[in-house]
Amino acid sequence: MESMRGMRDYVGEEADRLVWIQDTFRRTVRRAGYSEIITPILESFQLFAKKGGEELRKTMYTFTDKAGREVALRPEITPSAVRVFIDRLLPMPKPVRLFYVGPVYRYDEPQMGRYREFRQGGVELFGSSSILADVEVLTLLQEFFDEVGLRDKVTFKLGNVGILREIMNRNDVPEDVQESTLHLIDKELIDEAVKVLKPYLPEAILNTLSEVLVSDDQKARELLAKEELKYVIPHLTYLDELTRILMDIGLKLSVEVGFVRGLAYYTGPIFEAKVEGVSVSIAGGGRYDRLVELYGGPQTPAVGFAVGLERTLLAIPTSAAQSSPKIVLLFLDRSPDILKYGLKLVGLLRKAGLLITINLRDEILSKLLSHYGEQQYSHAIIIGRKEVETSKVTIRDLVQRTQTTIDASDVIEALRNV
Amino acid sequence: MESMRGMRDYVGEEADRLVWIQDTFRRTVRRAGYSEIITPILESFQLFAKKGGEELRKTMYTFTDKAGREVALRPEITPSAVRVFIDRLLPMPKPVRLFYVGPVYRYDEPQMGRYREFRQGGVELFGSSSILADVEVLTLLQEFFDEVGLRDKVTFKLGNVGILREIMNRNDVPEDVQESTLHLIDKELIDEAVKVLKPYLPEAILNTLSEVLVSDDQKARELLAKEELKYVIPHLTYLDELTRILMDIGLKLSVEVGFVRGLAYYTGPIFEAKVEGVSVSIAGGGRYDRLVELYGGPQTPAVGFAVGLERTLLAIPTSAAQSSPKIVLLFLDRSPDILKYGLKLVGLLRKAGLLITINLRDEILSKLLSHYGEQQYSHAIIIGRKEVETSKVTIRDLVQRTQTTIDASDVIEALRNV
Repeated sequence: MESMRGMRDYVGEEADRLVWIQDTFRRTVRRAGYSEIITPILESFQLFAKKGGEELRKTMYTFTDKAGREVALRPEITPSAVRVFIDRLLPMPKPVRLFYVGPVYRYDEPQMGRYREFRQGGVELFGSSSILADVEVLTLLQEFFDEVGLRDKVTFKLGNVGILREIMNRNDVPEDVQESTLHLIDKELIDEAVKVLKPYLPEAILNTLSEVLVSDDQKARELLAKEELKYVIPHLTYLDELTRILMDIGLKLSVEVGFVRGLAYYTGPIFEAKVEGVSVSIAGGGRYDRLVELYGGPQTPAVGFAVGLERTLLAIPTSAAQSSPKIVLLFLDRSPDILKYGLKLVGLLRKAGLLITINLRDEILSKLLSHYGEQQYSHAIIIGRKEVETSKVTIRDLVQRTQTTIDASDVIEALRNV
Repeated sequence: MESMRGMRDYVGEEADRLVWIQDTFRRTVRRAGYSEIITPILESFQLFAKKGGEELRKTMYTFTDKAGREVALRPEITPSAVRVFIDRLLPMPKPVRLFYVGPVYRYDEPQMGRYREFRQGGVELFGSSSILADVEVLTLLQEFFDEVGLRDKVTFKLGNVGILREIMNRNDVPEDVQESTLHLIDKELIDEAVKVLKPYLPEAILNTLSEVLVSDDQKARELLAKEELKYVIPHLTYLDELTRILMDIGLKLSVEVGFVRGLAYYTGPIFEAKVEGVSVSIAGGGRYDRLVELYGGPQTPAVGFAVGLERTLLAIPTSAAQSSPKIVLLFLDRSPDILKYGLKLVGLLRKAGLLITINLRDEILSKLLSHYGEQQYSHAIIIGRKEVETSKVTIRDLVQRTQTTIDASDVIEALRNV
């Protein structure tokens, strides 16, 4: 039998890498004062449908449960974080800093570095509209990349969807039309996006916008520098200030005024991170000042990001495993007193942090010693009648092929220093 | 909006406890030479239906996916471990030691300490029929309880389903009938189990068995001491030897010859763990020597356990959080050079392991200082023009209400020792 299409098993060192990157993420964001949330993998479909509607269903695992409820395997964790914030954290002083690490699900065609089950780490910062909040989350993402050894390999792309939002708001484009417009632009369906906006925008602005969306940053700024669009200036200024602060502290980034991200809830600065050697983006985020309200909470500015952990691992070489030395304990026979003596010793050694395997193979001693030598064990502890009667332990160095018998009380010390 | 019925959110210290117990489990079993596997939460329904059949569906989250496949949220992880063992690990020298930590799903009525989404840690030891393998996994489970502070609070119940299996095998009871019998006994539906076995067993043996299943250990042994049942003696001997070894090394346990566990794949010794103060069992396991074969692999003896992590946490008091001291960094104004100076410092301090929050609140300094004092912050780092121009840092002790200005290069040292 195999695992489901688009899903994979991680075994041994593969699993260790995945655990390591999750631990590193957790450690990094905890140091910035973020608190962890762990939310269910199965959520009401409605939680995710609030943004994106039926359209999202195409790439979501949705089901009907036995009680007739529409449920979904979460495609992202931000809506769950918003739910938790509203349910339990509204009385807390602002800002509230949350983080999560866990699997998400997308019913996509499997592709390079993208499985149908994959893991994200993310933060959400609720209750601050300060530019320092945007700086904080971007800096934190960079700190995570630093910690996993990608310090100089990551570049950010920065935009501000607030510009487009402002134009649409000023022209009374309804919220659902705004969202489908943003979605189309993200999918690079610019003509279709323009068509959707046509009933709402004056022709001159529509033309400008359609050019902005296909232009580079400099050209886009020239196009936006029109008297009738002067209301976008604060958004450009915000983007420029954010850029300057981030560059000052050493982030590598490019700015694109026309850049839009797929998730429809962003309202301000947005960003993506790319890393050398991986063609897809490995992280993304931005400001979403209206989502809490949409879920029934009070008006609350918010900013956050999510980073794809398997994708990030693609950029990190699998280093020769720096594993701790392995020690095997061998019983010369299995009489009760020998077992008791040896098993108690195993407990003590493991408590001292040593990796001790008990031999379970039924072979003669010489064969066992060569087997464990081949399996990269450094030492064997040999327990027989003589050892029990004298409270000693025989330790064999499987590399040097030497052995020595020492007091049982010295064995932790002796093996700790190997 | 709320989370789904029977599922819950963990926030802050609740989440920290859950992460801590998962980490502790991982650390404990790694020290015994076990390798981690991470398998998908969504699996083919067939993987779990192999044992238990349609009956399992009642307590499983099963769905049909968009491609018409029957899928399930895993109700346990052992079948996935067997799949991984067969797919990828057959060429490895035996025994193969695997562990897992992760969520599982049961569509049960929610009850005390039991949610529909909960987490298990577990080990599977493939390829050893030695009694030392049974000893090893039981010892390891005890070591885990030791590590989480439950050393003397846990008792094990021990049985050997091999006795019942042997009686059924000798009387040609088909495998599916054996499984439903075991299932009924586990549900304490003894009369129904006896009815199911009636067509296969001689009346005398059937009568003995129905008495054994409702008797205490001593009575059960007397009942089994019949000439026509002498073939069960090796299984009783195995159970007694296992008991002796485990008691020798200090495990607290009771033995019940008539004890049967719910999962239908066990073939030999079985066990459950209970802890003071929690009415339900918190862990269970046993020997399952035929499961690998059933999944299409070679005949492979195996033994393992799973421990419920939320249930284990129920027995562990929530200690006053020993959290690391929190420090806040305050900017006196937000001019570019001040931000640059402060943000770079934040990066350095976090890399040194300190917990540093950046102030995002728009209030006057005195209000900020009292706010952060109330929020259990130990120190504030204050950065203004004077500090930048002299390469200094002002540190305010929020408890003592004193402050001092020191060289920026000394700040890590100064704050590390608070």
